[in-house]
Formats: sequence, structure tokens, C-alpha cells
Amino acid sequence: MNRSNWWKTSISDISPGIIRYHGYPVEQLISSEHVGMASMIWLMTRGELPTVPQARLLERALVAGVDHGPQAPSIAIARMAMTCGVGINSAMASATNVLGDVHGGAGQELMEIFRTILDDPRPLSEAVEAEIKRLRSDNRYVPGFGHRFHPVDPRRAPLVAAVETARDVGVVEGRHLEVALEIERQINLNRDRPIPMNIDGATAIIYAELGFEPVLGRGLFILSRSVGALAHAWEESQSSQRNKGPEHRSILPTYTGSPERAVP
Amino acid sequence: MNRSNWWKTSISDISPGIIRYHGYPVEQLISSEHVGMASMIWLMTRGELPTVPQARLLERALVAGVDHGPQAPSIAIARMAMTCGVGINSAMASATNVLGDVHGGAGQELMEIFRTILDDPRPLSEAVEAEIKRLRSDNRYVPGFGHRFHPVDPRRAPLVAAVETARDVGVVEGRHLEVALEIERQINLNRDRPIPMNIDGATAIIYAELGFEPVLGRGLFILSRSVGALAHAWEESQSSQRNKGPEHRSILPTYTGSPERAVP
Amino acid sequence: MNRSNWWKTSISDISPGIIRYHGYPVEQLISSEHVGMASMIWLMTRGELPTVPQARLLERALVAGVDHGPQAPSIAIARMAMTCGVGINSAMASATNVLGDVHGGAGQELMEIFRTILDDPRPLSEAVEAEIKRLRSDNRYVPGFGHRFHPVDPRRAPLVAAVETARDVGVVEGRHLEVALEIERQINLNRDRPIPMNIDGATAIIYAELGFEPVLGRGLFILSRSVGALAHAWEESQSSQRNKGPEHRSILPTYTGSPERAVP
Amino acid sequence: MNRSNWWKTSISDISPGIIRYHGYPVEQLISSEHVGMASMIWLMTRGELPTVPQARLLERALVAGVDHGPQAPSIAIARMAMTCGVGINSAMASATNVLGDVHGGAGQELMEIFRTILDDPRPLSEAVEAEIKRLRSDNRYVPGFGHRFHPVDPRRAPLVAAVETARDVGVVEGRHLEVALEIERQINLNRDRPIPMNIDGATAIIYAELGFEPVLGRGLFILSRSVGALAHAWEESQSSQRNKGPEHRSILPTYTGSPERAVP
Repeated sequence: MNRSNWWKTSISDISPGIIRYHGYPVEQLISSEHVGMASMIWLMTRGELPTVPQARLLERALVAGVDHGPQAPSIAIARMAMTCGVGINSAMASATNVLGDVHGGAGQELMEIFRTILDDPRPLSEAVEAEIKRLRSDNRYVPGFGHRFHPVDPRRAPLVAAVETARDVGVVEGRHLEVALEIERQINLNRDRPIPMNIDGATAIIYAELGFEPVLGRGLFILSRSVGALAHAWEESQSSQRNKGPEHRSILPTYTGSPERAVP
Repeated sequence: MNRSNWWKTSISDISPGIIRYHGYPVEQLISSEHVGMASMIWLMTRGELPTVPQARLLERALVAGVDHGPQAPSIAIARMAMTCGVGINSAMASATNVLGDVHGGAGQELMEIFRTILDDPRPLSEAVEAEIKRLRSDNRYVPGFGHRFHPVDPRRAPLVAAVETARDVGVVEGRHLEVALEIERQINLNRDRPIPMNIDGATAIIYAELGFEPVLGRGLFILSRSVGALAHAWEESQSSQRNKGPEHRSILPTYTGSPERAVP
Repeated sequence: MNRSNWWKTSISDISPGIIRYHGYPVEQLISSEHVGMASMIWLMTRGELPTVPQARLLERALVAGVDHGPQAPSIAIARMAMTCGVGINSAMASATNVLGDVHGGAGQELMEIFRTILDDPRPLSEAVEAEIKRLRSDNRYVPGFGHRFHPVDPRRAPLVAAVETARDVGVVEGRHLEVALEIERQINLNRDRPIPMNIDGATAIIYAELGFEPVLGRGLFILSRSVGALAHAWEESQSSQRNKGPEHRSILPTYTGSPERAVP
Repeated sequence: MNRSNWWKTSISDISPGIIRYHGYPVEQLISSEHVGMASMIWLMTRGELPTVPQARLLERALVAGVDHGPQAPSIAIARMAMTCGVGINSAMASATNVLGDVHGGAGQELMEIFRTILDDPRPLSEAVEAEIKRLRSDNRYVPGFGHRFHPVDPRRAPLVAAVETARDVGVVEGRHLEVALEIERQINLNRDRPIPMNIDGATAIIYAELGFEPVLGRGLFILSRSVGALAHAWEESQSSQRNKGPEHRSILPTYTGSPERAVP
């Protein structure tokens, strides 16, 4: 067989009878007692297998993001798609497709902010203060903090605890955790109604502590949320709905445009 | 807050400060030592947590399908998309979107065939023979067997071995495995060049043994392959390619249509 | 330059300085007084330019299908996508992606039914009766007739009138129109509340009269509806919404699953 | 019926028996002799019907962009998708999805540059010079100029000529044309191998002259290119290919990663 340089890759080495990912034969990966999905995600995106505690910490973040119910646009779209007569692959693709800069992008953004702060030679509290000031002067809120209706995000505590434990046993350094907690402290100074860290913030700490690039942070969230998209697409496919709209069909959108007029 | 019956679901129970999946609080799922991605996939799609050995068997199938390199349309599309100036979510969505009836659908189809055979009151060998005959008379090949260039698919042996082990300790019954092996035996009678079970076939056994519906079989493959799509999208994003076409830009598609003519 | 047989096509002939579609130089197509979008759609999918009256009839069907407001899943999805931080291309793709067998597929299905009826050697009324009976015995309704809330679809009359006019001057034969009207007559016998022909039915007549294949019927609808998707995506992008869900954020989906329980 | 403020729109007014776009009854739009697809695109995105010469100029730009053959990622993806067992809607969606910042975004970017230059109080040549300098200092090329293999883009001349004609009869002012020609002049000073205006540049002039917002420029290109995606998806669906990869299956991607190694 010829080899194509146009499609070169360092990820998978495939030839008749052989499949290896970053050098590891697929049959060994399948059979290994230590390799699960978290390890495979790490291997495929980083080129090396993680240690067991690294994989375990990553997996907790993946578990945390699987779903936020049908009011999340990604999930609503997966469900609506299933009622339009497309395959479950298209429903899941439609969900993934909207996990953009706003819906899912906050974690990636925060990971970039961690970098800016950690590269700042000033003491942590000053570096954080400067960064928050910069964001506010750009009229931006701090990504990864606050939630439209959770006063306290129930995913924050167990994720932060998992990072603390991992830090205490030397799995991660804990520098990104420290930055995140300092951000949380500062944005909550003198506030009556607290702005707690949310899921994007808490998972961003884990992905950053484990050394993932910011763009991969978004990719990891997508892998996680795909599970919810599948579950909801499947549930909706068992309904008898056809062309499910966003609201019940007895409700029509309000029209705010030109009054009736004749085509000239 | 009001509740909407238009968007009812049995999967996630979300209200301010509370997120539960099928009744389990998300904070407990994150903190549990026994809950990883395979367990979450099971919980979200089935409504119950699996046992540890069930989750482990499922995970082996998920590990097996992550990637088949840039010659697979799903992966090529993810890579091409990244060079067109879209987010990694759109690149991954584009990959997922093509995992249709042909690219990824073989497993789902085989799971349906397993059912037909197991519902057949005749002895297994006769039921299998009848089903193969029916497929052939419809001019269809048996899904899940044969590969365009792997003479032996390296993923078959470890997956079949994993099912055998799980059967021996009572995790699964092994009836779908038995059917698959009988199909493999029959389609290879009197052949010089064997038609081995492929990845779609081997994972279909696991998904069926674990009680997943055929449509979910396709969904599970999608979750698995999304890992490869992410890894390849990420790798391609580090190249300097712009608008990467399927072949090197010095190669033009052959034109087979009308010769040049003037617009009337 | 090399030529690739792997990517051969009869549609476009492209080489340095030259772009021809089915033989016609692009510069002549751009400059022609008689070539508009309808003609280009015809040329690209059929290989020949239409006559002006053919293009005009096609265009009326395309005009008719551009939009059905934000309660249509395609349009709701385009709008929701725009609030998630993706490009307008991704919003439009998400809309197109759900125009499947149910949402947009009725026209294609009806075009196939036209064929069955026209191939039937019996008199028209008998052939139609047999086909309606067959559909009903399969528990299927006749595609292209009836609407969830339009008692009379306002697009039916002008489209049927356009086909009649085209038939009277010899642009089309009118056989598919005849079939559609006979179907409409029969399904409305002895009914109090009429089931009128809908947009899918009326445009299917035009596409079929003009000789398009059924699959292209769906494709034409997609081109038409893409206009509405663009308009709505653009309108939504001017709102300040972020992560717009299907209903107002004060409304939560009803949860119908397991009560709260502890992770074992 | 209730009305939903969550889904308000100024585009379409839909209630039982009534469909109006920006106030115009759909039945009148279908029947009008002056309303074609270009007019509908204008109406839906701008809120008013264009004059006939405005619609005609818009249509020429739409005609120009329909296709650039299977080496364009959008077209290759549509074709590959069709061989994977998905509907033609999903194939077209996959094509549209990659028309991002790089593949199709140049026109939008140039429309924004037109604005910057026209807002500059200095004489045109100085404003253009400053803008080119700024782009080059950011290591960016000028969008809308140059082509990877067309030494002269055959679509430039007829599109520029169409704008000149429209300007001469007062349909457009011609200020964006003037800017574009000055950019073209300056970037070609002292060059042996010219950098001509390309399709993105020439259509951007038309869209800008007609008063479309830059984001809509990308949207219009998408509507145009969707025609090519449909034609190619349809052509490929008539082949017998299954899971068509980017290159012939006898060619494997070059592997550049870790050598074989055992899973620890």
C-alpha cells in the first residue's frame, strides 16, 4: 500500500491487521485492566497514557458535565432533532454543534485566564485583581463563575474536593486551584448574593491541573455532554412526537414586524 | 418556578441547587469511587447504575472503537473542518453527523439480527442459516463481518475473549456471543479467504449481551468515536493548513461531464 | 496538474483560470440575462439549463417554502444555535440537519407515491384508491395533505394555479397535478373537517411535473428553507440572549423519573 | 391560541390560514411576477422587497458562488457524507457547517475592511494604504484577493462589470467597488505575479454595495454554495461507494508518531 503524506498523523498507525494508537496495540489497550475511557481520551489527545490517579481525576470532571436537562439548548436540540426523522447520530451532532463559545466555551476561556494570571510575576492576589479589572473594563464577566439559576452549583464542592485530594497526594500541583479560589474570593467581596464557581469553572481547574490545553478543555466537555445528548435523544425517540417545536403547538410566536401589506 | 410538561423527562431532575440523574445526586456520582464514564453512560441511557463488571465490559467495547485514522470519513471530515475556521465543537459535530447507517450502523443492524435469530424457535444453526439466506437473497452482506483491508481485525480477539470471561463468571449470558460465533462459522464454510468478525460485530455482541437496544448500540459507537474525532481535530488544528481538501491541492478531480459550451 | 479519478465528477470542470458547470463557463452564467438561482439549481442538479418558464415555475415552489416561523424545529434550532456562540454557518447547518424524513420528507414521499400511481395500469381513481388503502393499512397518513393548524394552507392555491397555468401553455404535462387533485378529492369524501393539500404536497407536484427525482425534492425544500434559517439566525443574533433554551428560563422541565436516591 | 414572547419575531406572522413575511401574504409573493429567490432572500433578511435591478445584481453574486468542485472541503464533505448512510439533509448540513471563518469567511472580513476604509477621513489611497499596512503588520493577508490556483479568477470580471453597470444606472453608489479596485491596485504594485481579486472579494463588493451587513455576506455565500453541495451529494449518492475516504483506499495515511510499544 502507498502512504499519503497529505494525511499524515501521529495518532493512529493503521495497516492490514494492525491498529496502534500512539504506538500501543489496540488489542492490548482493550485487554488492559488499567485502561478505560478516561485513559483513552488522555492517550489520544496527549500521546501518553495517564497514571491511574490522573485518569481518575479526569473522569470525575467528565462525569460532572453529562447533562443539564432539556432547557439547555444542546439537549433541547438533540430531542427536537429526533422528532424530525433523522438518525441518532444527526441528533447527537446537532447537540454537539452548538457547544460553542457561549454554551460550553466558558471553561476554555477560564483556562486561558489561568495562564495569564500564572504568567504574571506579581503576587497572586494582585495578578487576579488586575485580571478581573481587565475583564470588567471590557464589559465581560469572569467565565466559570455564577449560574443563571443555581445559587450554589452542586458540582462545585465535590470537584474542588477532588482536586484538593489529588494535590495532597501529589497528583497535581494545585496552582490552578489556588488561582480559581482567589478569583472566587475576590469576586465575592462585599456581595450579598454570592457568585459561586460553576461547573465550567470547577472542571476547568481539573483540566488545567492535568495539563490539558484550553481548546481541549472544550473538547472534553463535549465528550461529557454527548452522553446526555444520547440519553435525551433516545428518550425523545420513544415519544410519538413529530416535528417537536420549542413550545407546545398551541402557542404561537409573537409577531412584531410590519403589518399586513400587499406585494407591489 | 413553573414546570413544563412539553419538556418532561425521566432523566434529569434539575432545580435551583439540585441536579439529579435518575434520582442520584450529581455530587454523589462525582465523588463515588465506583462511578466512571461507562457507568454514567449506562445510568443515563438505562436508568440504573451497572455493576462494576458490567461497566468494565462496556468500557472495553468503548475503548475499541475510538479511531480508525484519517481514511475513515468521520475522521477526515473532523480534520478538514478544523482547517475551515470553525470551532472544535463543529468539527466534532461534523464527524458525528456522518456516523450513519453505513459508517457505524452495522453494529445496530447486527443487534437486530441477533434478535431475529434468538426469537426463532428452531435450533441455532438452522435459525442462523435461514437468516444468512434471507440477507443474501436481499443482496445484503451480513453486517459486522468482513473488513475492507484488515484480513483479521485485531479488535475481534480481545473483545470476544472479554465476553467469554464475563460469561464464565455470570456477568452476561453469552447467547449473543453464541449466535455471532455461529454466524462467523457459517459464512466462512468452504472459503479460502476468511471473512472474520469486525469491530462492529464484536462490539455489537457486548452491547447486546449487556442489554442495550440496537439504536443505543449506534449511540455508544458514536461516544467512542468522538474521542478519535477530538484527537484528530486537535492535531490538525496545529497544522498550518487552510481549507484542507481531500487530496493535495496539486491534484484536481477528473471531469467527466459535458464539454465546454456557450450559455444560450 | 494531476487528475484524481477518486474524485471524478460530471458537474464542475475546474482548472487554473477555468470554472465550468456542465460545460458552461461560469463567466457566461454570471453575465447571462436569463440565468438566475432557479436556473442554476436546475443546471447543477440536472445537467442542462431549464427554459425560462420551467425556471419560473420552479422558483415559485422555492419561494413558497422559505419559512414557517420559530415553532418549526429547523428555525428554532437556528435561533438557539446563534445564542450559543457559533458562526452563522453552524446555525444554518443545524437547521438543515433536521430537515429529515419527518420535517421536510413528506414531499419526497409523495413524489414516490405519484410514481406508484402513474405506473399503475388501472384508471386513475382506482389506482389512487388502492394506494390510499395501502397507506392506511400500513397505518400511515397520505404525505403532503393536512396541517397541524392551518385549516387551509394559504400556499396551496397559488401553487396549484401556477401548475395549471404552466400546463395550459405546455410547460408541464399536468399528470402529477391530476393525481394530487384526485388524492385530495378522495381523502376528503364524507368528511366534515377537510384535509387540504399542504405545502409539501403542492411543491411536490411542481417538482415532479418538472422532472426532479424524489430525493431532489427534499433537497430543493432544503435550499428554500435555508433562507428562513438565515433570516431567523440573523434576527436572533441581534438579541442579547445567551444559551437560549426552548422555553423561558423560569420554566423547568417536568421530571418524571426515579425519586431521589443515594449512590450505592 | 396563546402568543409566546419568548419566541417573538418580526419576520413571519403565522396563524391558522395565514402566513405573511414582513407583512406580505405568502400567496401574493408566490404569485407575483417580480418575486424570485433573490427577492425573497432580500425580503427575509432586510424586511423590504428589493427593486428588480437590486435583486438582479444580488442574484449574479449568488450564481457565482455555487460550486468549486470536490477539492473544496465543503463539497468533499457533502459527497463523503452521502456514502455513510445519512440523508441528503445531513450531507448538505455537513457542507454548510464548514463554511467558517476560513472557508467562506473572507468575504465577510473584507466587508468589514470596506467599512473601516470608508470611515477613514483620509483620501482613499491613504486609507487603503494604512489598512493594508495594518493587516500585514498583523501577519494577515488581505481577504478576498489571491487564489491558491486560479492565476486569474474567471468570476472577477463579470461580477465587477455587473457592479459598474449597476453604478452607471444608479442602482448602487459604487463606493465599495472603488475601495476594492484601489486595494487590488495597491497590493499589485511592483509584483511580477499578480494577486487578483477572487470570488470572495468580488461578491463582497456586491453584497456591500447592496447594503448587506458583513455577517449576512457569509450567509449569502452559504445559500449559494448549498446548491453545489446538493448537486454533488446527489451525484455521489448515485455511485456505489460506501464510507468514501478522502483518498483511494489503497493509500494509507503516513504515521509519524511513537513506534510500537507495549501497554504497561
